[in-house]
Amino acid sequence: MTLQDARTPENGANGDEKSQIGWHKGYVSGSRPDLRVPVRRVHLTNGKDVTLYDTSGPYTDPNIETDVRRGLAPLRENWIIGRGDTEEYSGRPLRPEDDGLKHTSPRGGLKNLDAVFPGRPRQPRRGREGAAVTQLAYAQRGEITTEMEYVALREKVTPEFVRDEIAAGRAVLPANVNHPEIEPMIIGKNFLVKVNANIGNSAVTSSIEEEVEKMTWATRWGADTVMDLSTGRNIHTTREWVLRNSPVPIGTVPLYQALEKVDGKAEELTWEIYKDTVIEQAEQGVDYMTVHAGVLLRYVPLTARRKTGIVSRGGSIMAAWCLAHHQESFLYTHFEELCEILASYDVTYSLGDGLRPGSIADANDEAQFAELRTLGELNTIAKRHGVQTMIEGPGHVPMHKIKENIDLQQEICEEAPFYTLGPLTTDIAPAYDHITSGIGAAMIAWWGTAMLCYVTPKEHLGLPDRDDVKTGVITYKIAAHAADLAKGHPGAQEWDDALSDARFEFRWEDQFNLALDPDTARAFHDATLPAEPAKTAHFCSMCGPKFCSMKISQSITDRFGGDEGSTPEEIEAGMLEKSREFAESGNRVYLPLAN
Amino acid sequence: MTLQDARTPENGANGDEKSQIGWHKGYVSGSRPDLRVPVRRVHLTNGKDVTLYDTSGPYTDPNIETDVRRGLAPLRENWIIGRGDTEEYSGRPLRPEDDGLKHTSPRGGLKNLDAVFPGRPRQPRRGREGAAVTQLAYAQRGEITTEMEYVALREKVTPEFVRDEIAAGRAVLPANVNHPEIEPMIIGKNFLVKVNANIGNSAVTSSIEEEVEKMTWATRWGADTVMDLSTGRNIHTTREWVLRNSPVPIGTVPLYQALEKVDGKAEELTWEIYKDTVIEQAEQGVDYMTVHAGVLLRYVPLTARRKTGIVSRGGSIMAAWCLAHHQESFLYTHFEELCEILASYDVTYSLGDGLRPGSIADANDEAQFAELRTLGELNTIAKRHGVQTMIEGPGHVPMHKIKENIDLQQEICEEAPFYTLGPLTTDIAPAYDHITSGIGAAMIAWWGTAMLCYVTPKEHLGLPDRDDVKTGVITYKIAAHAADLAKGHPGAQEWDDALSDARFEFRWEDQFNLALDPDTARAFHDATLPAEPAKTAHFCSMCGPKFCSMKISQSITDRFGGDEGSTPEEIEAGMLEKSREFAESGNRVYLPLAN
Repeated sequence: MTLQDARTPENGANGDEKSQIGWHKGYVSGSRPDLRVPVRRVHLTNGKDVTLYDTSGPYTDPNIETDVRRGLAPLRENWIIGRGDTEEYSGRPLRPEDDGLKHTSPRGGLKNLDAVFPGRPRQPRRGREGAAVTQLAYAQRGEITTEMEYVALREKVTPEFVRDEIAAGRAVLPANVNHPEIEPMIIGKNFLVKVNANIGNSAVTSSIEEEVEKMTWATRWGADTVMDLSTGRNIHTTREWVLRNSPVPIGTVPLYQALEKVDGKAEELTWEIYKDTVIEQAEQGVDYMTVHAGVLLRYVPLTARRKTGIVSRGGSIMAAWCLAHHQESFLYTHFEELCEILASYDVTYSLGDGLRPGSIADANDEAQFAELRTLGELNTIAKRHGVQTMIEGPGHVPMHKIKENIDLQQEICEEAPFYTLGPLTTDIAPAYDHITSGIGAAMIAWWGTAMLCYVTPKEHLGLPDRDDVKTGVITYKIAAHAADLAKGHPGAQEWDDALSDARFEFRWEDQFNLALDPDTARAFHDATLPAEPAKTAHFCSMCGPKFCSMKISQSITDRFGGDEGSTPEEIEAGMLEKSREFAESGNRVYLPLAN
Repeated sequence: MTLQDARTPENGANGDEKSQIGWHKGYVSGSRPDLRVPVRRVHLTNGKDVTLYDTSGPYTDPNIETDVRRGLAPLRENWIIGRGDTEEYSGRPLRPEDDGLKHTSPRGGLKNLDAVFPGRPRQPRRGREGAAVTQLAYAQRGEITTEMEYVALREKVTPEFVRDEIAAGRAVLPANVNHPEIEPMIIGKNFLVKVNANIGNSAVTSSIEEEVEKMTWATRWGADTVMDLSTGRNIHTTREWVLRNSPVPIGTVPLYQALEKVDGKAEELTWEIYKDTVIEQAEQGVDYMTVHAGVLLRYVPLTARRKTGIVSRGGSIMAAWCLAHHQESFLYTHFEELCEILASYDVTYSLGDGLRPGSIADANDEAQFAELRTLGELNTIAKRHGVQTMIEGPGHVPMHKIKENIDLQQEICEEAPFYTLGPLTTDIAPAYDHITSGIGAAMIAWWGTAMLCYVTPKEHLGLPDRDDVKTGVITYKIAAHAADLAKGHPGAQEWDDALSDARFEFRWEDQFNLALDPDTARAFHDATLPAEPAKTAHFCSMCGPKFCSMKISQSITDRFGGDEGSTPEEIEAGMLEKSREFAESGNRVYLPLAN
């Protein structure tokens, strides 16, 4: 593989200019010219480079002109067409109610949906009759797709390993044939731990533009996938804008939109309305869908005396439906039909945990684990249909009950990727639930969770704004990377080592540029010692020059570190010699302390 | 025990008025009139009260007038005098260099030290000849002190249990006889996990007033102890202000001041200068002192080829001294003499981990564990002298290496309280090291660490300001409480349950008042839905009224929850009945969904 670098000038072309100094977007090339895997290359002042995983998409490449009104280039289009197993078709006609506009007042007007996203119109695509077009089906047949090769370069493993993990159902590569814009990524316990960021407007607040901006902002800081959880007006159009501009897989909960179509009356939901919504979203290009098919009628009473009942939106809607009709969930009874639909677009299942605990008191209870066992059954059925599948997990769980969750999920679901929300390890800190959950997230990821759904500081209190999205993503990247280290993921520690070397050698600019958030690290440093010389100073404001342990310790390393091959005994002997020199010269060994 | 409540009016008298609505300072009384343990009582809108541990001192009691220029009332003075085993004495004379003023220019003037803290002058106190005046000595003799009874009320355990844990060396009750102002607290793995906050000026920045303000601010948010790590000018005076105004035990690292006295030249340190500094600080009332007596000459070469050498300030100073003289550390060779000094004031040892790892790469290495074994030996010696002792721990440690630390410490140090910094679970996130370390802190506390030393967002970058102190304390209170839950500490979950009940019942004001940080929780909520009616609304801005899972789920609980004794089968039967009613009435079961 060769490294083709899109050299970034001192100031990047994409808005956030300051943060581009010291690093630039590079590409690792694969077996074909259009297979170029983006990386973040950090240039250190000691002449070395560090290459990091990059989720930010074309937005951070100054050589690529992006326009949110046109969308990203369809990177995968030729790969999909080239396989010859899909076909374009006219698609489901768009209807005003797709945007929740059924009750729009005459004054508000009814917009032409086609005009709302100005990018090029396109026909939806699906698998040809009889063709199995999912990455799982390809892997099971022994084929290595371009997407798999892309992912292998990204993860620094072989394409065969990627294929085998997908074939075993231990990993998913969410990539709807109608979302050619994405840069492929993989979710599985034997790969880097991934992070999902939720965005989405609601009836109460926010706009389309804000959601698209939140999506690019989230991927800028490291979100590997984004879920659009919009529930209000313009739900179809918002999703179209997000999909066409997203370099990462997009997930949704189709039930939310289906509920909008029946004006919020859960009992009026039907399989037909739900199915129509799934097709609508699959045609748009949604890569994975949360389906709460494990909330069965008989499980609902198990939640009645919980402290916090059902806290999943999808779970509570389906529970309400089951109770109102006293019938089994249509998601469960029509599950095989749903598999066929998802398979024809390669939409990945995210089997939702509708009965996840919403408080410490409810963790690991009968309701939660009953649903998990049903998700295990559904996972087996989905795999049989060639549908890629991951399983969603809790929720609120105290530390000592976390491991039971992942162990049980891995056993019941045949090692299918676990995709967890947190878990939150205590309920007492609203406004800090990124932290209460970041603790649980790091632990459960160490023990095998493949993807973490972020939690922002606004959890339980309101919708996240731009700052909250960033804080949530950074917190979860920390949890994911801490887990990568603990799992001994090959190469994970190189990043820590590079930063620690920079720290020990007082290369402040390198520390900033290697940091998960260079902007904030630099700002914090400058808040106390803003002068430019302080960036090369051999101390910082914490201890001042006299007390700097690193500075004292460096002189120990310099004087007594010895050669690569020295034993501690040899070093000790050298140390004694140095001590004599000191005594004889009457001079000071530790120059740094003389400051 | 009775609850004497210092009723707080709607607006508290102490500055931060808004946060006082809905809770007030209460007291739990013990066996004598002057034994009143402060608690935070939260009044819920459903008429119930929740009682929480309170570290904020007299500052949050509107019935007590405080004046930082006079200091707090000496709560324990009569208890100490009453024991009759200590005596006042003239004390060590104060010298200008105690404040690092040796080189003050004539223009700057040399202030009269006695005048700098205007509070009442007092004589220092120490144990009478032959008297063993430490809480450990009392406990070993089977005595229950008033301090132990105070702590028992605070922790909701028996005084006998407190005494036995101290006697076994499994817990410490840091309480210098010269610090009568403190509200006693205990540190041990069988008690609530505690949090320490570091403050301190340095040569580069900050002032006395700022440090006192940081101390009261830290305790306001839950810091159980505070370490004054000042290294610059006015070091003695800063400490005097902090001690006289602190309701929590104060820790220091005497080596820092000793180094100031030799103008920052480590090799010029002597046992005499160090001892003089320890006595100076013990006379002021420092409750525990970090002593890096485990950094032995022969361990220094073990650090020479580390990635980040020695990162402890105290450790690097002692390493420098050992190397310069090629002699064993005076802290080690004079350890028994130091024990006698500390014992006479009841200063608690915090045996410092001078060789703790400063990067993921250096975790659990030979240098670190060699020092730990020496700390184990010193712990045994200290206990023999009746000196209370805790052991400091790392540092930077990846998740999979954390448990080894606490297990080894508990084994080597006979279950002496472990007092850990973090550990930080990755090096890649400067500006977020409260989070990288909060993850490790929660885990190591679950596994047995007794006190966590906080890390602020400014770690590695600069000195924490007011906001950083708060963020650090809150993050660590989360870690500590998550650990209390995981350890199954009696009563810990009551707090979570109360908050979760409030959440499920849409008692927004109760949620805010029960939150670890009511101000921020309220502000975040108001940012999206500021209107007063939203505080009682049965939904929030996250999902809007139609999608509120809690609202849907509540109606399930209301309709099908059954009586306390109902079985799931009975509930299921009731559910079927309700479903029939619904069908017959032709009406909607889920009223909330109709909104």
